[in-house]
Amino acid sequence: MAPNQNLAAVVHGPNDLRLEPRPVPEPAFNEVVLEVDCCGICGTDIHFLKEGGFGAQTLIRPIVLGHESSGVVRKVGSKVTHLKVGDRVAIEPAAGCRFCDLCKVGKYNVCLDGKHCTTQKTDGNCSNFYAQYADCCYKLPDHVSMEEGAMLEPLSVAIYATRRADIRLGSRVIIFGAGPIGLMCLIAAKAMGATRTVILDLARVKHRLDLAKELGVTGTIAIDKGDKEDDLVRRVHEVLGGPADRVLECTGSEPGIRISIKATRNAGQICLVGLGNEDVKVPMVDAISREINIVTAMRFNHDFPAALEIVASGYVDIKPLASHHFDLKDVHEAFRVASQGEGNKVLIHLVPRDTNNKKKFVN
Amino acid sequence: MAPNQNLAAVVHGPNDLRLEPRPVPEPAFNEVVLEVDCCGICGTDIHFLKEGGFGAQTLIRPIVLGHESSGVVRKVGSKVTHLKVGDRVAIEPAAGCRFCDLCKVGKYNVCLDGKHCTTQKTDGNCSNFYAQYADCCYKLPDHVSMEEGAMLEPLSVAIYATRRADIRLGSRVIIFGAGPIGLMCLIAAKAMGATRTVILDLARVKHRLDLAKELGVTGTIAIDKGDKEDDLVRRVHEVLGGPADRVLECTGSEPGIRISIKATRNAGQICLVGLGNEDVKVPMVDAISREINIVTAMRFNHDFPAALEIVASGYVDIKPLASHHFDLKDVHEAFRVASQGEGNKVLIHLVPRDTNNKKKFVN
Amino acid sequence: MAPNQNLAAVVHGPNDLRLEPRPVPEPAFNEVVLEVDCCGICGTDIHFLKEGGFGAQTLIRPIVLGHESSGVVRKVGSKVTHLKVGDRVAIEPAAGCRFCDLCKVGKYNVCLDGKHCTTQKTDGNCSNFYAQYADCCYKLPDHVSMEEGAMLEPLSVAIYATRRADIRLGSRVIIFGAGPIGLMCLIAAKAMGATRTVILDLARVKHRLDLAKELGVTGTIAIDKGDKEDDLVRRVHEVLGGPADRVLECTGSEPGIRISIKATRNAGQICLVGLGNEDVKVPMVDAISREINIVTAMRFNHDFPAALEIVASGYVDIKPLASHHFDLKDVHEAFRVASQGEGNKVLIHLVPRDTNNKKKFVN
Amino acid sequence: MAPNQNLAAVVHGPNDLRLEPRPVPEPAFNEVVLEVDCCGICGTDIHFLKEGGFGAQTLIRPIVLGHESSGVVRKVGSKVTHLKVGDRVAIEPAAGCRFCDLCKVGKYNVCLDGKHCTTQKTDGNCSNFYAQYADCCYKLPDHVSMEEGAMLEPLSVAIYATRRADIRLGSRVIIFGAGPIGLMCLIAAKAMGATRTVILDLARVKHRLDLAKELGVTGTIAIDKGDKEDDLVRRVHEVLGGPADRVLECTGSEPGIRISIKATRNAGQICLVGLGNEDVKVPMVDAISREINIVTAMRFNHDFPAALEIVASGYVDIKPLASHHFDLKDVHEAFRVASQGEGNKVLIHLVPRDTNNKKKFVN
Repeated sequence: MAPNQNLAAVVHGPNDLRLEPRPVPEPAFNEVVLEVDCCGICGTDIHFLKEGGFGAQTLIRPIVLGHESSGVVRKVGSKVTHLKVGDRVAIEPAAGCRFCDLCKVGKYNVCLDGKHCTTQKTDGNCSNFYAQYADCCYKLPDHVSMEEGAMLEPLSVAIYATRRADIRLGSRVIIFGAGPIGLMCLIAAKAMGATRTVILDLARVKHRLDLAKELGVTGTIAIDKGDKEDDLVRRVHEVLGGPADRVLECTGSEPGIRISIKATRNAGQICLVGLGNEDVKVPMVDAISREINIVTAMRFNHDFPAALEIVASGYVDIKPLASHHFDLKDVHEAFRVASQGEGNKVLIHLVPRDTNNKKKFVN
Repeated sequence: MAPNQNLAAVVHGPNDLRLEPRPVPEPAFNEVVLEVDCCGICGTDIHFLKEGGFGAQTLIRPIVLGHESSGVVRKVGSKVTHLKVGDRVAIEPAAGCRFCDLCKVGKYNVCLDGKHCTTQKTDGNCSNFYAQYADCCYKLPDHVSMEEGAMLEPLSVAIYATRRADIRLGSRVIIFGAGPIGLMCLIAAKAMGATRTVILDLARVKHRLDLAKELGVTGTIAIDKGDKEDDLVRRVHEVLGGPADRVLECTGSEPGIRISIKATRNAGQICLVGLGNEDVKVPMVDAISREINIVTAMRFNHDFPAALEIVASGYVDIKPLASHHFDLKDVHEAFRVASQGEGNKVLIHLVPRDTNNKKKFVN
Repeated sequence: MAPNQNLAAVVHGPNDLRLEPRPVPEPAFNEVVLEVDCCGICGTDIHFLKEGGFGAQTLIRPIVLGHESSGVVRKVGSKVTHLKVGDRVAIEPAAGCRFCDLCKVGKYNVCLDGKHCTTQKTDGNCSNFYAQYADCCYKLPDHVSMEEGAMLEPLSVAIYATRRADIRLGSRVIIFGAGPIGLMCLIAAKAMGATRTVILDLARVKHRLDLAKELGVTGTIAIDKGDKEDDLVRRVHEVLGGPADRVLECTGSEPGIRISIKATRNAGQICLVGLGNEDVKVPMVDAISREINIVTAMRFNHDFPAALEIVASGYVDIKPLASHHFDLKDVHEAFRVASQGEGNKVLIHLVPRDTNNKKKFVN
Repeated sequence: MAPNQNLAAVVHGPNDLRLEPRPVPEPAFNEVVLEVDCCGICGTDIHFLKEGGFGAQTLIRPIVLGHESSGVVRKVGSKVTHLKVGDRVAIEPAAGCRFCDLCKVGKYNVCLDGKHCTTQKTDGNCSNFYAQYADCCYKLPDHVSMEEGAMLEPLSVAIYATRRADIRLGSRVIIFGAGPIGLMCLIAAKAMGATRTVILDLARVKHRLDLAKELGVTGTIAIDKGDKEDDLVRRVHEVLGGPADRVLECTGSEPGIRISIKATRNAGQICLVGLGNEDVKVPMVDAISREINIVTAMRFNHDFPAALEIVASGYVDIKPLASHHFDLKDVHEAFRVASQGEGNKVLIHLVPRDTNNKKKFVN
């Protein structure tokens, strides 16, 4: 274990992000200690940094950010058998208590007592070292880069969302929001058989829509201030050749949710993935009278194995999403870029790039 | 066929309800003509009368109200084999076009081209005679009254809602709204195994909450003007001994939907049955971050057979819901009583009471 | 803790059952040690005793039988918070490893590494003392007897089976086998809304069919040697008034499975609950061409909470199933009675009857 | 309408296939009359020709074979609006009665009274002209060949099977049988996200396994006479890197079903698509104790729209399956080739090849 220091990206309050040392952890019997390689920045990290949290998850003490990481096993707990020192792994950043009603029926992702980072009570892993349950660490084959390993997290979110949305062969799908989750949803929806897809985002993040085109979306809609709801619905129908069957709503915004419902066919299904406006004014008579289901997806639900499988097998390519790379010392700039939506997935490197990759990461 | 006249309750515009003659229909090859016995008044009838419609369903021409009816077969179409003149039947008032994508996969209840009464384009059946597809008419055994036959419609709505809500043995269930649909939902939820139930409605319709008690609800909450959302959530938890697993929301109101979400456990499920506020401000970050599903139920989905079965077998008793009985000539008073929520199910009798019942209807 | 001895019913080989002392266990951090009150005998116990196991579960060392038990908490592990010494509990006898793919998605009941008793590697709990995970122990309210607590296990099996079978309001249901699981399935199916039920078993266990009648089955069929498949199908149709919608097959026998399929309607669903013939000759062209699903249910899947809820609330009464009571010393006779099907549920009492009941157990 | 004759391939009894004239049909109000372009031969056609039927579907009168056809609209019924003379269409050969319990809930594919060809009561469409419900005819875009149109039928079967099997992103899938349905299942499974696939068939149809390789299967297993069940299970595990998650069983054979179950993981799911042995000896204790579901798929369930969509969009390529082309006059040779499994999909052309294609069909 090279460095003896465990520097972490800690948020102390709104816009108060500090790089500060934390103790190097020791593994419990069922844990491994990882030297983190790289860590993607997610919208919830930005919520913590800019607004001090989201929903009920508000800062009550300084907290380490980051939960989209890969790392290398440095220490192994006494009962761990499937991992060894030196293994390169993707880190699933959510685990249930394993004892409650929710965990028993497989809904560990919303366990009230889980170790879900980053939340109010649970530090994230944008730090040099991190202890995690061994069963939450997925060994990467040699040909999968650490960057892809880190990005399995948002891909898992997207896979779960597509499962919840019940995407099928030939589905017409709206994806609202072209940030990293939206683009991962695009990749997952196409991989499950969606043939007509439309992605919407603000005109000011046109580069994201352009990337969606490279990823094979059928059409993009750049939303301008002042665009009318019904016009946007009509434009969605134009791209899809009719109303949507399914929606992956990745913004949590009122316009996103409203347009999603209005542009969907009778008996269609909308999956809300993104957290946005606390309260959203929903066209409910429309939704009920046309029997549109509004399902929700929080985190993922044991989707890391599928995420790793489809990346490792070459079934999908998520590398194009990695748009920016920063060293840990430049974490403030990394967060600035991420929060302004300048690129797509912003990655923070805690070790020099490609240290743990068999070949140079190129997207 | 005794009367030669076909009097119908026709709405011409807001608060303009008229009894006027319509032609006596002849059956198409796959239809029967029914002499309607009695007809319950539903919330959507009241929406048409008071507000000229609901959602996209607004009056474009005078329309016959009523869609909760039973009747006696008077004429039989040329291809109809399972019914004969004199059969007493419950009338399912919704049928799909049978040809579209939705009908083919069994979602005829939201078919865009269906014969769903009462809607903008489709007359209801609060009239002496009514032609309906034979396959939508369910023959009543002798011991089932015409009143129960009429009430199979709201019971079917409730059965569908409980199926969509995924009520299970031992579920803790919130029922929002103690009108006829709410009370039918209570009956259906208990019949499917809900053991702890709470029903909420405004204090001014206390008689409805009282009937819920007679029907075996665990607890009732009478909402007073000014009651705070969080207090109501707390009171729901008190009755149920914790958060709800499932919700049957029968009001479509903003408070109903908001409290439903807030009072439900992580990974719980809410079924919206009632049409109310056009737009509803939903606590969406709460719903998403706790992964609460919001499903919708419109009409019913081939639930008449189950409704008839559980009534005919004595598994449930829906008779107590019939609170008021009016002759057709008193239809204005019937609508006044129904719209003011003075009772529960208000029935309009198009033939003298008990004409077609083996024994006197007593609830 | 009164007795210092931990006597256990241990099977050493075919028909070799011995009462022998085992060490009194100490609780791990997440366990409690229970003084077992009573323990029901299950078919799999009999398989172990008579045939040395079932399926892949064959005896590899002497094993303690029993897995339908209730007990009183005598010692509490260091991390256990929801139970205390003296609590009366029902014991769920299956727990997953909590780390594998199956456990994470909620299928702990078929976890390859679970603590499922009685299996080859895991002792049962027909012994004076037993250590179990605290989260598998469900505290009984005062008014629920220890006998009911023990019988929550087969009730949980039945609840799970009815969920898997997708029983609905108004379903027509075949229950094959009128042993304790069959009768519990009858109770659960009726509680979920089945209105027409038929139960079949051999004529020689007529007392079981009689109990089914007391429990409200629509009709019973006593199978005689030589009864033809098609005749039995016809008789099932006569009782149900047509083909079945759903089946709960509790024997695992070839005739049971064959008749179940043949007597079920197109697109119906059969749930196999009972383990019987290793290989079963299935009428597969019939099943496929009529699109009948054959689903399976092993153990239960977090159904103890529902089982306890519906018993404690009085929604169902399972007491009538307890037909025989034996002291531990009479365990051989208990097994003889159980294996010959003389009664229904045979209970072994490890403490004097009613020691831990508020009032005398009467069924 | 060029030819005035309507020649049909009619089976009169085992191995008695005749080309004989039938009346040219006129369309009913909701039908179109099609001039059939080409027609694929399916296993059930061969069952009719070789064995006089399958399951309950046995010859009771001479019947026209064929149900995988495309054609050109020549006459349009009075109420048909979405098709016009000259439209090129794929023909869905199954329609429900639209009135029964099964049709109402969307299971028209197993409607007891449906127009499902080829069955005992319903002629197929290997004939020059054919009248079909207009809503069962799917208009082909110009760039989709008539051959692809005909092959939408087996593709729809495969899509339905994958839906029923619940194939997911990253699933490990066994496909049993490498005939046209097996290969279509391979295409559909991969299109839905299966990353590891293995296909098994007899060594004597090695060319089918070779085509599976071209289509991207992970591994193939050529079964030799005398191969042991457990060895084949082991070889499946080797290809998949462990037990299967899902199975698409396309043979209906006892070895196929047995190996499918044995090679599948706990809580896995098997979908039976192929009709084979009337009775199949199933390892049922294994299936139940490991909670493996056995679901069935008969025909398709409104899957033509998805089939057309994924072909027309280029998402999948089914052209390679077309291995043999015959003129109608050579129908006997076509059936010989098909029944001996010499190729894959054998197509009979009722008009000269490419008459209705924009460009020459090349696979």
